[in-house]
Amino acid sequence: MEMGFLFMSGAYGDPKGFQIEKMVMKKAGWKLSEDRYFDPDPAQRRIAHKIYGLIAGCLIISPHGHVDPRLFSEERASFGTPVDLLIIPDHYVLSMLYSMGIPLESMGVQPLDGGKFETDHRKIWKTFAANYYLFLATPTRIWLDYVFYKVFEVDKKLSADTAEYVYDHIQAKLDSPEFQPRQLFTRFNIEVLCTTDAAYDALPYHKAIRMLDWKGDIRPTFRPDSVVNLLEPAWMENIKMLSNVTDIDIVSFTTYLLALEKQRSYFKTLGATATDLSAFSAFTTELGRDELERIFQNALHREVNGQDTALFTGRMLIEFARMSVEDGLVMQLHSGAYRNHNELVYKCFGPDKGGDIPMQANFTQNLHPLLNKFGNDPRLTLVLFSLDESTYTRELAPLAGHYSSIKLGPPWWFYDSLNGMNRYFNLMMETAGLYNTAGFNDDARTFPSIPARHDLWRRATSNFLAGLVVKHVIDESDAYEMALDMAYRQAKRVYRLD
Amino acid sequence: MEMGFLFMSGAYGDPKGFQIEKMVMKKAGWKLSEDRYFDPDPAQRRIAHKIYGLIAGCLIISPHGHVDPRLFSEERASFGTPVDLLIIPDHYVLSMLYSMGIPLESMGVQPLDGGKFETDHRKIWKTFAANYYLFLATPTRIWLDYVFYKVFEVDKKLSADTAEYVYDHIQAKLDSPEFQPRQLFTRFNIEVLCTTDAAYDALPYHKAIRMLDWKGDIRPTFRPDSVVNLLEPAWMENIKMLSNVTDIDIVSFTTYLLALEKQRSYFKTLGATATDLSAFSAFTTELGRDELERIFQNALHREVNGQDTALFTGRMLIEFARMSVEDGLVMQLHSGAYRNHNELVYKCFGPDKGGDIPMQANFTQNLHPLLNKFGNDPRLTLVLFSLDESTYTRELAPLAGHYSSIKLGPPWWFYDSLNGMNRYFNLMMETAGLYNTAGFNDDARTFPSIPARHDLWRRATSNFLAGLVVKHVIDESDAYEMALDMAYRQAKRVYRLD
Amino acid sequence: MEMGFLFMSGAYGDPKGFQIEKMVMKKAGWKLSEDRYFDPDPAQRRIAHKIYGLIAGCLIISPHGHVDPRLFSEERASFGTPVDLLIIPDHYVLSMLYSMGIPLESMGVQPLDGGKFETDHRKIWKTFAANYYLFLATPTRIWLDYVFYKVFEVDKKLSADTAEYVYDHIQAKLDSPEFQPRQLFTRFNIEVLCTTDAAYDALPYHKAIRMLDWKGDIRPTFRPDSVVNLLEPAWMENIKMLSNVTDIDIVSFTTYLLALEKQRSYFKTLGATATDLSAFSAFTTELGRDELERIFQNALHREVNGQDTALFTGRMLIEFARMSVEDGLVMQLHSGAYRNHNELVYKCFGPDKGGDIPMQANFTQNLHPLLNKFGNDPRLTLVLFSLDESTYTRELAPLAGHYSSIKLGPPWWFYDSLNGMNRYFNLMMETAGLYNTAGFNDDARTFPSIPARHDLWRRATSNFLAGLVVKHVIDESDAYEMALDMAYRQAKRVYRLD
Repeated sequence: MEMGFLFMSGAYGDPKGFQIEKMVMKKAGWKLSEDRYFDPDPAQRRIAHKIYGLIAGCLIISPHGHVDPRLFSEERASFGTPVDLLIIPDHYVLSMLYSMGIPLESMGVQPLDGGKFETDHRKIWKTFAANYYLFLATPTRIWLDYVFYKVFEVDKKLSADTAEYVYDHIQAKLDSPEFQPRQLFTRFNIEVLCTTDAAYDALPYHKAIRMLDWKGDIRPTFRPDSVVNLLEPAWMENIKMLSNVTDIDIVSFTTYLLALEKQRSYFKTLGATATDLSAFSAFTTELGRDELERIFQNALHREVNGQDTALFTGRMLIEFARMSVEDGLVMQLHSGAYRNHNELVYKCFGPDKGGDIPMQANFTQNLHPLLNKFGNDPRLTLVLFSLDESTYTRELAPLAGHYSSIKLGPPWWFYDSLNGMNRYFNLMMETAGLYNTAGFNDDARTFPSIPARHDLWRRATSNFLAGLVVKHVIDESDAYEMALDMAYRQAKRVYRLD
Repeated sequence: MEMGFLFMSGAYGDPKGFQIEKMVMKKAGWKLSEDRYFDPDPAQRRIAHKIYGLIAGCLIISPHGHVDPRLFSEERASFGTPVDLLIIPDHYVLSMLYSMGIPLESMGVQPLDGGKFETDHRKIWKTFAANYYLFLATPTRIWLDYVFYKVFEVDKKLSADTAEYVYDHIQAKLDSPEFQPRQLFTRFNIEVLCTTDAAYDALPYHKAIRMLDWKGDIRPTFRPDSVVNLLEPAWMENIKMLSNVTDIDIVSFTTYLLALEKQRSYFKTLGATATDLSAFSAFTTELGRDELERIFQNALHREVNGQDTALFTGRMLIEFARMSVEDGLVMQLHSGAYRNHNELVYKCFGPDKGGDIPMQANFTQNLHPLLNKFGNDPRLTLVLFSLDESTYTRELAPLAGHYSSIKLGPPWWFYDSLNGMNRYFNLMMETAGLYNTAGFNDDARTFPSIPARHDLWRRATSNFLAGLVVKHVIDESDAYEMALDMAYRQAKRVYRLD
Repeated sequence: MEMGFLFMSGAYGDPKGFQIEKMVMKKAGWKLSEDRYFDPDPAQRRIAHKIYGLIAGCLIISPHGHVDPRLFSEERASFGTPVDLLIIPDHYVLSMLYSMGIPLESMGVQPLDGGKFETDHRKIWKTFAANYYLFLATPTRIWLDYVFYKVFEVDKKLSADTAEYVYDHIQAKLDSPEFQPRQLFTRFNIEVLCTTDAAYDALPYHKAIRMLDWKGDIRPTFRPDSVVNLLEPAWMENIKMLSNVTDIDIVSFTTYLLALEKQRSYFKTLGATATDLSAFSAFTTELGRDELERIFQNALHREVNGQDTALFTGRMLIEFARMSVEDGLVMQLHSGAYRNHNELVYKCFGPDKGGDIPMQANFTQNLHPLLNKFGNDPRLTLVLFSLDESTYTRELAPLAGHYSSIKLGPPWWFYDSLNGMNRYFNLMMETAGLYNTAGFNDDARTFPSIPARHDLWRRATSNFLAGLVVKHVIDESDAYEMALDMAYRQAKRVYRLD
């Protein structure tokens, strides 16, 4: 597809009134506008700037994300090439390219069967750059442009023409000592970074970080998906690893619970304040102990089916709420994705390549058993994330606006975007109130996108609050307090990081 | 939580560009802006002011709400304390406070088991005031600020600091003759106020009001929930009361229908023009007479289950449509709430304490049986309310834009808010058209919130129409007619109050 | 209902601040504003004008609609009266009027039983004009005002007062040679127009058009609904027509498929590049061949039920995907309407009179079987349309942003409106990206509404992109390219019309 400037031809009819000279692309001096993402109304924009001026420099609280802790435990850890850093691990990038017919192999993704894939990262980058227009108006482009401009100080807009220039520029930065992970951690102004770690993980990198003469606050998060989801192919191996790491022989549901509890304790010793579960749905159920033991024993013999799996997860959600009440770990629930919907991509390349699609969600009925057991317990904090925005006003805001245990996680995944944030603000706040929300999670997979994502949230926050001020829904003085809560304080409170 | 002004410290990074002096809160001279809730664009705001100037002073039509008629039948009725008036009966207020861990007992709500609760209303008010920041950007705060400023002429913004001042100020007003209910009725410019009354109610207060030398137009609304919902614990007692009040011995489904019809007639003699039913869903069904009689006889012996209850309600909805066709009472249907979701709160404090959560709704299939029987009958007016906004464009607007019987009730409950109204306008009007909507219902539980809620609707209406004018979707002259319809005429027409 | 200007009376309270002279309706010189549908912000509006200046005159690509090809094959084809042209065939108009209690017979719709109906078109027009206020703020009025002003150069706003003037004005134009269909085709700047044609159609008008000494590019679209939906009353007759037109004796599922394939081939010879299916839902299923044959044989004996019908359609969707992979025809799927919901209207007047109501939709699970078979095939283009906007962010954008085969059709039916387009843009683009959308379909039933609908889309597009520019989400130079894609290029690409 030809994306260079298109001169008017007969094919486009009569473009009367169009001033050709206005369209000359200014290639020199590419930069991000300081007005970006603010509404154009001058009164609103003026106040948005004032609010943003207050929160732009706040330290970053990152209570949920997927950065590899090894980047910080190893002295000479490096991000590799621009493609290693920004393309291969980013399912947003891969999915969009794949949707336009670009094979994943050609973007450097290694097939599981050992098949061929592109290893020339400069070539991959050029393909990416030539297709960068596909990302126009997407959050991926907003994040990447921030990373290019603010993190790597790239001064040309990425396109087919500038691909090599940008590649070389970023590679040179990555090769410099200032771009080692720990240096960037400091430069990014991160107060605390939480990783996501399997339940059976011995957390060697977290231990190593604690030993360092380095002040970076990096904490694990207990994520038991791979030992809870009975349909997970590696479930049995994962259970064995959990046995090993805890020194508990998991032969029954009782020993399984003991192992989980012991490992949660261990995570806490390394700073964890939260857990996370990714479930198909928010279904919870009070299942009898006999039935539970039967399902568990069958699972140990790899006899599992969809219904038992759903019942087991539904029962474990209540069990995890009970553990959170007891040990004080904040409970996060991410639900609603049909994982690996594209079976071909899953078989060829494994999970997290973009083939996950949201489904209709239900929290009102599904969470009822859990909430009636623990929803009123002041010790429980349950942070809910949703991929079905129709639940925002219908279920999530009313639940959070009533139950003391529930806090609303920020807009997740497909909705971690400018419009997604605006919808979240406008749909949630009136009923839940700001103080039943959980601030921001960046959920980043690539480390340099952390400041990019917080910046977008802070700008969206500033603009939202400025809109309330100019409409006289709130006073300007309230807006400043709310901004600090949304950018910094609320995440720290809800995740018990203070 | 410390909500006083927060001076910049290291914890918040480098707040460059932030002008500290701009944040000084102007405590003196608190007032509501006359620009409130209008978009900031000067052209739109100018027209919004013109439209609002036309409708701000329109008489109030209040076709659906929960004000106690006794307030008007008794000469010396009083609203009690500010807490009696504004806190204890308001489930919006209670729910938000409860969601932040504040016990209902501490807010003056009496436990059903006779347990302790706070009775010092000044103390309750101080707790409320200290937590008033929780309501920032919520409709509750918009309504209360209106009540404070416009109804009680409070001149300081409510906060922990001003709590006692505001309490004393409001109490003094409440103690004055000008703040007796009938005086406020006149001052609020109410043309007609409809209450909500149980099907078995003898309507003594409505009768008494009619005897008074007072012109206030207050009408009952026939609400048979408590004799329709078979799972209602007091159903049998309610049936007995319905028997008593109608002098019809309810021993069969036939006598049950007769009693309901007789009582509807009685309500009409006291001015009723409408009925209302609150149902779990909009499910309707054509159930055979034998099956119906079987369920009814079982119910008389208190043998009920969920399925029979759903079938019975579904059949009764069609029966009520038939009665409306015959007696001309407008039929309202409020559906979609999972009532008493929080069982602990329900057991301790009873219903309507905030523990009701919306669910997915379906009108297209659910209403099909009813609509195919009566949907084309020119005598039927069926006003639909929804707690699932995803039904707005998908089901409700198309249904209202086709069936002559259907009118769309205004945004209800969680959506009776600035954003909720904007969504309703933008989602409904294009397909249903304004003239298939039912104007505004305030649905108020506290009497002084009536003008507050109508003012918000009228401001939202003015702003919406002004937006259409500046976008040249409608002409300015059309906007004025539409504004009068939305603020006053359409409610009067649809509820047959003219 | 009195809709003339309403002078203030006591009934409306005290309209303080209202300037009566501002409301004088300027009856002279009615015209559409050149700023229409643009946001009022001056910066955004300035850029919207620039973008619109570029695309307003682009040729029209109309890949999906319901214009009768006979209009162009016959030398002296005429549109009849204004009522023939604009009222009787337009279900948007009929539905709104019916919803306000105006009988369809009175609007010229002929009852199926041969009953009476109004035949005085001038009288019908006057009824319509007197009720034109019902359409305020609806897309129907936006389209009609365009048709009046731009196509027929009407210079007075339609109302009861101007009804006859407007009728005479339009009739005079329609009687002039310049308003013959082929003349308008040229004047409307249409590059290609695709019709919708039954699978059994011999396409005589398309053949005739190809023989003409006329350059108009009009192409058929293969629509097999009437031979796929087993519950269709005329299914057997339709099968016989398909047998006849293909010379294939349809006695089995195999011969049925052969006939469909042969007819697709035939459509291609007359320029078809696409097919379309209108299904109850997007349900797809891999049904065994034996089961399929059983259902088909039963259908040939008119033994059908709802479940078999759903299974059959679900299996046929996969079959049609397979055929598209083989013959290259773009596959369109319109799903989610409960057709003929109003049984009385259907029985009296037949389909397409406004009694179709959307339902909850599901694409994630429903399309899974089809996508796992053909979703990754580069030869397949599947254009999806939805009547459930809650699927936009939840399912459709994620599916299109991942599967190479999926493109998102423009907002359809109830959502083919200014707000509907804005929601579509804001909900879809961030995740799907512009290049996974299919540009615009006008879906017109009345020929003169084609330019009206494209103009609305182009204005909405211009305003949307201008909003992104002023918020610095995209650069102005990008906006011009995107605008050309949205107005012209993308429809041409996706529908393989280039």
